[in-house]
Amino acid sequence: MIQTATMGDSVANAYQAFLAYRNLSYAGRAKLLNHIADALASNANDLIAIAAEETNLNPARLKTELNRTCFQLRSYGEAAAKGLVFDNTIDVGTTGNSQVNIDIRKTVVPIGVVAVFGASNFPFAYSTPGGDTASALAAGCTVVIKPHPAHFKTSLAVAKIMKEVLAQLHLPGSIITHLEDASTEAGIELVKHPLIKAVGFTGSLNGGKALYDIAQQRVQPIPVFAEMGSVNPVFLFPNRLAQSAPKYVGVLAGAITGSVGQFCTQPGIIVGIDSPALEQFKSLLVADLNTIPPAKMLHQGIADSFAKYRQLFLDKTTTELLTKEQYFEHDMAIPTLIEVSAADFINDNSLQHEVFGPVSLLVRCANEQEMVQIAYLMKGQLTTTIVANHLDVEDYKEAIHLIAEVGGRVIWNGVPTGVEVCLSMHHGGDFPATTDSRFTAVGADAIKRWGKIKCYQNFPQELLPPPVQNKNSWQIWRRINNEYSKSDLD
Amino acid sequence: MIQTATMGDSVANAYQAFLAYRNLSYAGRAKLLNHIADALASNANDLIAIAAEETNLNPARLKTELNRTCFQLRSYGEAAAKGLVFDNTIDVGTTGNSQVNIDIRKTVVPIGVVAVFGASNFPFAYSTPGGDTASALAAGCTVVIKPHPAHFKTSLAVAKIMKEVLAQLHLPGSIITHLEDASTEAGIELVKHPLIKAVGFTGSLNGGKALYDIAQQRVQPIPVFAEMGSVNPVFLFPNRLAQSAPKYVGVLAGAITGSVGQFCTQPGIIVGIDSPALEQFKSLLVADLNTIPPAKMLHQGIADSFAKYRQLFLDKTTTELLTKEQYFEHDMAIPTLIEVSAADFINDNSLQHEVFGPVSLLVRCANEQEMVQIAYLMKGQLTTTIVANHLDVEDYKEAIHLIAEVGGRVIWNGVPTGVEVCLSMHHGGDFPATTDSRFTAVGADAIKRWGKIKCYQNFPQELLPPPVQNKNSWQIWRRINNEYSKSDLD
Repeated sequence: MIQTATMGDSVANAYQAFLAYRNLSYAGRAKLLNHIADALASNANDLIAIAAEETNLNPARLKTELNRTCFQLRSYGEAAAKGLVFDNTIDVGTTGNSQVNIDIRKTVVPIGVVAVFGASNFPFAYSTPGGDTASALAAGCTVVIKPHPAHFKTSLAVAKIMKEVLAQLHLPGSIITHLEDASTEAGIELVKHPLIKAVGFTGSLNGGKALYDIAQQRVQPIPVFAEMGSVNPVFLFPNRLAQSAPKYVGVLAGAITGSVGQFCTQPGIIVGIDSPALEQFKSLLVADLNTIPPAKMLHQGIADSFAKYRQLFLDKTTTELLTKEQYFEHDMAIPTLIEVSAADFINDNSLQHEVFGPVSLLVRCANEQEMVQIAYLMKGQLTTTIVANHLDVEDYKEAIHLIAEVGGRVIWNGVPTGVEVCLSMHHGGDFPATTDSRFTAVGADAIKRWGKIKCYQNFPQELLPPPVQNKNSWQIWRRINNEYSKSDLD
Repeated sequence: MIQTATMGDSVANAYQAFLAYRNLSYAGRAKLLNHIADALASNANDLIAIAAEETNLNPARLKTELNRTCFQLRSYGEAAAKGLVFDNTIDVGTTGNSQVNIDIRKTVVPIGVVAVFGASNFPFAYSTPGGDTASALAAGCTVVIKPHPAHFKTSLAVAKIMKEVLAQLHLPGSIITHLEDASTEAGIELVKHPLIKAVGFTGSLNGGKALYDIAQQRVQPIPVFAEMGSVNPVFLFPNRLAQSAPKYVGVLAGAITGSVGQFCTQPGIIVGIDSPALEQFKSLLVADLNTIPPAKMLHQGIADSFAKYRQLFLDKTTTELLTKEQYFEHDMAIPTLIEVSAADFINDNSLQHEVFGPVSLLVRCANEQEMVQIAYLMKGQLTTTIVANHLDVEDYKEAIHLIAEVGGRVIWNGVPTGVEVCLSMHHGGDFPATTDSRFTAVGADAIKRWGKIKCYQNFPQELLPPPVQNKNSWQIWRRINNEYSKSDLD
């Protein structure tokens, strides 16, 4: 009962803060995001130390993540301030259907208080100060953060810094609310709260889909943007493989095992066509993976799940373990490559299960037709990677074309890990990779998830919001009479 | 069983057509839309005659609607061809977070086969050739249309014309599929079909919410854009009313009773502050409405519902009928104005029920605080109308500001009926007005509902889709390194 009161108060306060914060200019929101980035950067050493202790991730990796988080905060604010993500649109004159003079102006207003769920594998970039928070604040929303229990101290330390920034800027403290209760039950209560208007989540399919269902069953359904991971198939074509297998193996092994394989873009399935080049690639990759020692996972639940599903894969009569078997502590994971034929993979849907950790399936195809069949059998994916050269484009043109259709992002000769933060990025994909393939979770377009449309017809100038007044005082990109422009309207 | 086979075949064919149609250029899609508009215009007299017979709507009204429908088809194609609605985005160089040279390009690809549900009240503009079809085709999707049973012949005639256009242009016939079965069961089966990837619906809250729930309970949930109506409150301020009540009454009476009140933007609630001006307005409006005779509704189900809910309103002890009581045939509706005090309205949620037809509630407020309270008590609305002049802006500044927050579109000194077709239009609103306030059903941005994002990393030029190749051969607006541009990339 006390919990209920606390939750209710927290969200009510976040809503009160929303009523003020939503009126801040794009530039004002960008200023807040820049100041948060500055404050996080100033406290980097302390934050990284706390996170390293809680997550078992190494400090170098956490430093890269924190830098990325700061860049995210800054770049989302900047994109918003330039008018690159909001559809501010003005039609005046006879541009409509009824051949009379019209004056209609459309802007994007923040959707309300957003619930942000921290992700276990990115204590910064997808958690408390992460992409959901940055994009929601850039959209003019306030946030209520449900911290991930696996890095609660990190989350609390970050929230404290963000709150201090709010105070320095004389902004309401409840623009950013950090729940004390990191339990699943608190998360469910949060999603059910009538004043919560949207949800951002990164995590497991079970967790994301459960929140999605709860949100859809509310009296007023709300959008849930849940990014729930995928197995990120990599398709290897023979000519490229023959050309550069040794070089590629090192990069791929890094993608399989980096951060103990705990990335939603970890390449969990590698698909190749039987050939001497594939044989060479395989032995090189196995040798490389065998040099990488077992490592501690984020938390015991993930380690248990890794061990369980790895064993399920190995227990199948259709699979063969390629990497060396060795003892590993119960909170650790070992790099694992498992081989299966395309025919067996195609017949066994359970092999598409995402095993969070440093394990990949090597699927051997007899021909390109099997490769294409695998691409099409795969559930919604965040990414697909195509490893090919110009000879492959000639030899396997149709297969490459068809495989490129799978996944929200397609990578040419690279690895799926390392999600660049830029406007052109798409971090999303068909269900079950995400709950809505029309939106991205990374890049400034992530802001679009938290805005709803508002349109003004024949309004007096002084009552219009600044982005759609005649004078373009915010110096933003707008659509005026069906063209993009930064001009004032006469 | 036969039905099931037919439905399965229809959707499978629509999917096959999709695999071809999605590759058509924006200009190619615009050409199709223009040809459909031409063909509908050429057959206008025949189509209007069939529709008038089926819907009881008068030919002049249907002609306006058909013109609007043709404009919609053309303008959506044009907006798509200019790149005004798709986020084609290119980042090259060091614009991302990792300070290395990147080459990432993002485009919007059609989501798949779209299910379109015809609406009873707009046999053209929101049905078979309507906004959902036009926007889905502009997005590169194919459509399967579930016709509304109340105007099946009109729908069939339109579909026949659209099919002929496809044949003339040598495009696959299944780009547009018209179901023979107009039943509710067929609609449900359609939404459940795995190859259907999105749904457009305009109609009742019950119908739209039921389809939404079905779609969310699928193994793969899909977006449902359901526009389910609202009561479109009109707020009258004293100074403006004193200035122009007689002139406004005529316009408002037309909005209440036009097309027998069967518009989703019909003003069902009129809110005023007690004053001599309101008294004058009231007697003028009653006199005007009393001159308008009963008229036939779209179909018997709507007429029955009108009679039932009108009576429920009149049976309340809190309401008073202002217009004259008169006998009306069981398939007809009569213009009806009912008075209620703000206090009673606030205490009785059931008075917010949308009665589809020419009935409005006049809600009398003691002061502006009651007006604001009513605005905030209202469920999600498509529109809000504010009738005020500069004196009202001075006298009631805060109230006007607060009331303007309600509804997807806010109209200044006008009426909510007459939804202009232009890029700046928003036809949408919070639930239950629609299922997703982030999208519009009218205006070219309606196209955005049917696109998902696809991103290419380090792809060879020749394998990229034309919208994101270096050369801007389609001459579209794109975002290149965080600015809008129509330039080629070097």
